[in-house]
Amino acid sequence: MDDELRVFRKGGIVIENDRIVAIGQSLDIVTEYSSSSQEIIDLNGQFLLPGLINTHVHTSQQLARGIADDVDLLTWLHHRIWPYESNMTEEDSYISTLLCGIELIHSGVTCFAEAGGQHVSGMAKAVELLGLRACLTESIMDSGDGLPSSWGIRTADECIQSQKELHKKHHNTADGRIRIWLGIRQIMNSTDRLLLETRDTAKELQTGIHMHVAEIPFENDLVIQTREVDHGTVTYLEKIKFLTSNLLAAHSVWVNENEIGFLSNSGVKVSHCPAAAMRMLGFAPIKEMLDADVCVSLGTDGAPSNNRMSIVDEMYLASLINKGREVYKNGTTDPTALPAESILKMATVNGAKAVLWDNEIGSLEVGKKADLIVINPSSWSMVPIHDCISSLVYCLRSENIDSVMCNGRWIMKNQKIMNVDEGEIISMAKHASAQLLKRAGIQIPNRMKLI
Amino acid sequence: MDDELRVFRKGGIVIENDRIVAIGQSLDIVTEYSSSSQEIIDLNGQFLLPGLINTHVHTSQQLARGIADDVDLLTWLHHRIWPYESNMTEEDSYISTLLCGIELIHSGVTCFAEAGGQHVSGMAKAVELLGLRACLTESIMDSGDGLPSSWGIRTADECIQSQKELHKKHHNTADGRIRIWLGIRQIMNSTDRLLLETRDTAKELQTGIHMHVAEIPFENDLVIQTREVDHGTVTYLEKIKFLTSNLLAAHSVWVNENEIGFLSNSGVKVSHCPAAAMRMLGFAPIKEMLDADVCVSLGTDGAPSNNRMSIVDEMYLASLINKGREVYKNGTTDPTALPAESILKMATVNGAKAVLWDNEIGSLEVGKKADLIVINPSSWSMVPIHDCISSLVYCLRSENIDSVMCNGRWIMKNQKIMNVDEGEIISMAKHASAQLLKRAGIQIPNRMKLI
Repeated sequence: MDDELRVFRKGGIVIENDRIVAIGQSLDIVTEYSSSSQEIIDLNGQFLLPGLINTHVHTSQQLARGIADDVDLLTWLHHRIWPYESNMTEEDSYISTLLCGIELIHSGVTCFAEAGGQHVSGMAKAVELLGLRACLTESIMDSGDGLPSSWGIRTADECIQSQKELHKKHHNTADGRIRIWLGIRQIMNSTDRLLLETRDTAKELQTGIHMHVAEIPFENDLVIQTREVDHGTVTYLEKIKFLTSNLLAAHSVWVNENEIGFLSNSGVKVSHCPAAAMRMLGFAPIKEMLDADVCVSLGTDGAPSNNRMSIVDEMYLASLINKGREVYKNGTTDPTALPAESILKMATVNGAKAVLWDNEIGSLEVGKKADLIVINPSSWSMVPIHDCISSLVYCLRSENIDSVMCNGRWIMKNQKIMNVDEGEIISMAKHASAQLLKRAGIQIPNRMKLI
Repeated sequence: MDDELRVFRKGGIVIENDRIVAIGQSLDIVTEYSSSSQEIIDLNGQFLLPGLINTHVHTSQQLARGIADDVDLLTWLHHRIWPYESNMTEEDSYISTLLCGIELIHSGVTCFAEAGGQHVSGMAKAVELLGLRACLTESIMDSGDGLPSSWGIRTADECIQSQKELHKKHHNTADGRIRIWLGIRQIMNSTDRLLLETRDTAKELQTGIHMHVAEIPFENDLVIQTREVDHGTVTYLEKIKFLTSNLLAAHSVWVNENEIGFLSNSGVKVSHCPAAAMRMLGFAPIKEMLDADVCVSLGTDGAPSNNRMSIVDEMYLASLINKGREVYKNGTTDPTALPAESILKMATVNGAKAVLWDNEIGSLEVGKKADLIVINPSSWSMVPIHDCISSLVYCLRSENIDSVMCNGRWIMKNQKIMNVDEGEIISMAKHASAQLLKRAGIQIPNRMKLI
């Protein structure tokens, strides 16, 4: 995924500590480096790729998988997600992030952007332990209708203060694998003061902002009604000069042509989450954004919006839905839209740009961090391979991902998670989630006749 | 999936030879049957389900995976698929079906309907060996533009004759696991004589007809122009009395309200293939069909239209796309559309009705065939499970499918395919597909800079 899009048929790579120090033809690499190497690994017949980057995931929602399937949006938010999130402890967030992280690693992810969740310190502890790379963000709201009364609403200043403390405590920790970002849950839960203070604080701290943008038509309608603009969130954010190149705008489904121009001109990064979009939000104009040179990356969203936390599946979905969406513009699908190489870019280099880390990750290049994945393509799910790039995007399943390295260390090897005991985390997660749902008073109705 | 939609929390099942002879609470079953049982299997903590049914899959296209990704429809058909299919040998078809069957079994399928392919005898040999259940169909065309000249076009009578012979040779073979159906590739490759002879022959042989129906707008337009009706294929098939309850209509994307009425009234079964629809065809009005009591089941289509031959993924996709499609009717998605229990029905009981086999498969009931799958839900991809039915539809991945039984015999146990050597088939498939592409003169351009 370098600038020249080079693919080595028989490549070799040299890693020293956490960095890539050489890359080239295997034969040349072996000749030059084998005598000075501590370990030589033969990946003959396997694919080596940069680690995938998930630019929108709610790690603290992992314990909520399945609590809000097939319900309308208001039930989803008011009766399931808010009660769940407002009843979480830091320990819950820790366990939730551990469980989510295990799924991310099995799905080939080495770096993710937390979408804004509860108890960042719990998340940070899990990320440090798992060995992942992450931009962590607190869920930030200073206003809004229908929030649980038990959830003390903070002022804009308290929100900023809390995030400054988290930044001080966790930014650049875990051997530099953890960065702290600022969050805005969404415009309907933000005063202008919070938006502008967030923008200025991000500049001061030189970090990013992660915000849900233009998710549903209702959001745009409310912004038009209450904030005196003619089209929705992006237009308003442009008006108040909130759109900057360190903003990661998740979803961005309901944007018009003008707004795509605003996103492009200001260098805003977009996280496209195909599964959540199809299920709950609508079909974002991704082809139009890419044509306008907007940097679009891929995200899974949270477990209660998607169920599968797999960028592998999101690559497949991004292809399918954006080919299909052309029906509504042109009367037929366009099977040539978003070709496999574009989607692979979205999951790697574009992801790195989205998390403001492309100087160190997103491609396998000399000087970059050793974040990479090993794929076994010789299985029933991928054979035969007539087009190796498209097979990575359309055939790959998480079961083909054999090993994962982050920051020069294996965090999964031969499908075994290295730094935690998977079975133990699964037991902890079962217990903690049952207790949390009980505390939150969330009951899931039976669908069939359970006896 | 019985009529009462019963789900046993701690169920037990008794199998004798190829049939289910008892079902109930585990404790009762063990008390009554343990002394007379040859083998008792404890599936504590696992889920037991009826085998999934794939109602539209081109098994002879498995070796063509990846040969036609991201290309337009004409390139897809004229420069990739037809050259591929017209150059297949019976041995190719055998190997292709073996490879496809392995993927189907790993994805929890016990029964499939072949969409119409090359060399039915090769398919039958593979199905018999793998231990699967299938309705096999020859690819049938007696007219059409742009077919390869090397492919001698047969008359309608020759098509019928060939299928009668296949029926005689293979129908009800492999312990009754194989049935032979009649095929119609699509209306643009069929004379009226072929359509009517097919309908009458199916009645005579008491078997089903598998046909691609209303796939693309161009098809409907051509039917309007050449066959004097006011709206496309389904309207024309109604006019000539081709719509009957033994017709399995694949895709059925471009149908209007009237035509949904025709399908419903005549008892036609529809195979919905979400991935292929999104990628190449368009979004079928599935919610409207279900509301009109059309029996809708799920299919994967062939490897060059989808890449993943997994009903597990199609369940997930069917949910996502049909929730999302509501945007175009109502302005917002409907996350309550096609709930998990409806989708599970599509993949099991509706699938059984679609293949005209619901008296023996599609649910776990006394007297039915022992076609079932064992799922391990205690993994990172499914935990926590707060809603067991939705987790089966939205979280399940093929890696959770542990064991598969068809006709009372294990065809996969602990993820090991029982009747063939997976590695050997993969090697054979690599070799055969490379040779076939060479013979057919198909070259796949490089997408990136391969060095």
